[in-house]
Amino acid sequence: MGQVIKGKPVADAITESIVKDVEALRMKGIVPKLKIVRVGAREDDLAYEKGALTRMGKCGIIPEVLELPLNIAQADFVKELKAVNDDQTVHGILLFRPLPKHLKMDEIKFLVEPAKDIDCMNPINAAKIFEGDKTGYSPCTAQACVEILDYYGIELQGKKVVVVGRSMVVGKPLAMLLLDKNATVTVCHSHTKDLPEVCREAEVLVAAVGKAEMVKGNFIKEGAVVIDVGININADGNLCGDVDFEQCVDKAAMITVVPAGVGSVTTSVLAKNVVKACKIINSL
Amino acid sequence: MGQVIKGKPVADAITESIVKDVEALRMKGIVPKLKIVRVGAREDDLAYEKGALTRMGKCGIIPEVLELPLNIAQADFVKELKAVNDDQTVHGILLFRPLPKHLKMDEIKFLVEPAKDIDCMNPINAAKIFEGDKTGYSPCTAQACVEILDYYGIELQGKKVVVVGRSMVVGKPLAMLLLDKNATVTVCHSHTKDLPEVCREAEVLVAAVGKAEMVKGNFIKEGAVVIDVGININADGNLCGDVDFEQCVDKAAMITVVPAGVGSVTTSVLAKNVVKACKIINSL
Repeated sequence: MGQVIKGKPVADAITESIVKDVEALRMKGIVPKLKIVRVGAREDDLAYEKGALTRMGKCGIIPEVLELPLNIAQADFVKELKAVNDDQTVHGILLFRPLPKHLKMDEIKFLVEPAKDIDCMNPINAAKIFEGDKTGYSPCTAQACVEILDYYGIELQGKKVVVVGRSMVVGKPLAMLLLDKNATVTVCHSHTKDLPEVCREAEVLVAAVGKAEMVKGNFIKEGAVVIDVGININADGNLCGDVDFEQCVDKAAMITVVPAGVGSVTTSVLAKNVVKACKIINSL
Repeated sequence: MGQVIKGKPVADAITESIVKDVEALRMKGIVPKLKIVRVGAREDDLAYEKGALTRMGKCGIIPEVLELPLNIAQADFVKELKAVNDDQTVHGILLFRPLPKHLKMDEIKFLVEPAKDIDCMNPINAAKIFEGDKTGYSPCTAQACVEILDYYGIELQGKKVVVVGRSMVVGKPLAMLLLDKNATVTVCHSHTKDLPEVCREAEVLVAAVGKAEMVKGNFIKEGAVVIDVGININADGNLCGDVDFEQCVDKAAMITVVPAGVGSVTTSVLAKNVVKACKIINSL
């Protein structure tokens, strides 16, 4: 049976390192602050927010939440977000998405300046991830996968990595981050022919499609590392990943669990990005 | 022996279609204009410029060249480029790169507004290519590969495509364009292990590394389509591609030549982008 990987040790290690960074910043009189901007009160936003608030507390980062009404007009929203962006005490801004449909992302996505855009909403940040510019902030879930691989000492250089999924939240930015680590990266998706066969080539397989347990045992090369980004509800009504854990755990050398896997690393990546932003803004 | 593919018929077909578009624009009183901005007089810039001027002429697009001195100061260059960008009669701007080292791209790359940035210098355009936003302009060489595949009716959906090379001029943007076509895309590079083996999986293989004839016969799957982006000088002092043509032509179903292959399609893509810009700017 493969090594079962949980996110907690990774999150703890990142947190520990952040605590030191934050202490050093506070010694200089700088207190990192995260501003969360939430429109309405969707359940999954609230759940993530709760985790984020706890994590920031552990890290010594001040978290603040701005809740805005669901029916806020575009002009008012723009004004609010600009004010948050202009606030000199705020280093990182997380805006929960998707926004209600009447709010126009075309305008909004540019309002958080790249230096404070810690969850990669601004296209200028997306371009940095595309280019491999290390001053950019990766989407937290994509970065969480890399943190897990780093923590467990998975060498990526020259490795065959297959990413299933091509979203702008995970698949595509993760492919770029893995290319930066000199992996040979294949991106698969719903149109990929012979998906099991392509996945079986992978030394590291990342599933980020959002389909319950779609990665089966015949997708896995013996000894592969399997990272499961999905969080779904299966036919039995239980939380599950994109990977059929039971079918894959014996073949994999390492495999992440769901829940308590990749998802539990994202808030520590968020905290890491706030500290990075704080340093960049203060030219440290 | 595989079908030997030249760029000219592709360029001709694109040009023919542009001529019609430009006629329609001129009927509305709109004359598409390309402004080329060149610092100094590098030989390869001049060669490309010459081809571009001829192509624009064929298409009915007005080309203008602004030549600036090699020692131009950053502030002066910024002023000149801003003036070009503000010129209402200019629809597309091509700035030859790399610029002399004293000129700072960090500032300059944002000066051409995305709507006129027809060779994908502005990060906002790069982000559009990354996201699959069709209002973006792809780098001309990357787009030229797609045009060739389109022209010759190569279906990409579900196909295994391998791109060798990960530059921001070809490899990475091309990978995104091919993903948009629903290909399964693998990006290889200098650190890829077993490169011949990975390439042999490809139904479509694109070589964009800039190493003379590095793709050998054992890289090619029987019946593959081979696109050669490289332009190099081989040991005999002759122009050659990244693909060892002699070794690969018998295995490939189709293979592009060098010179007169991908390179000869780029100026027609440039013209196509100018017309696209002209339409976007005029809300057509």
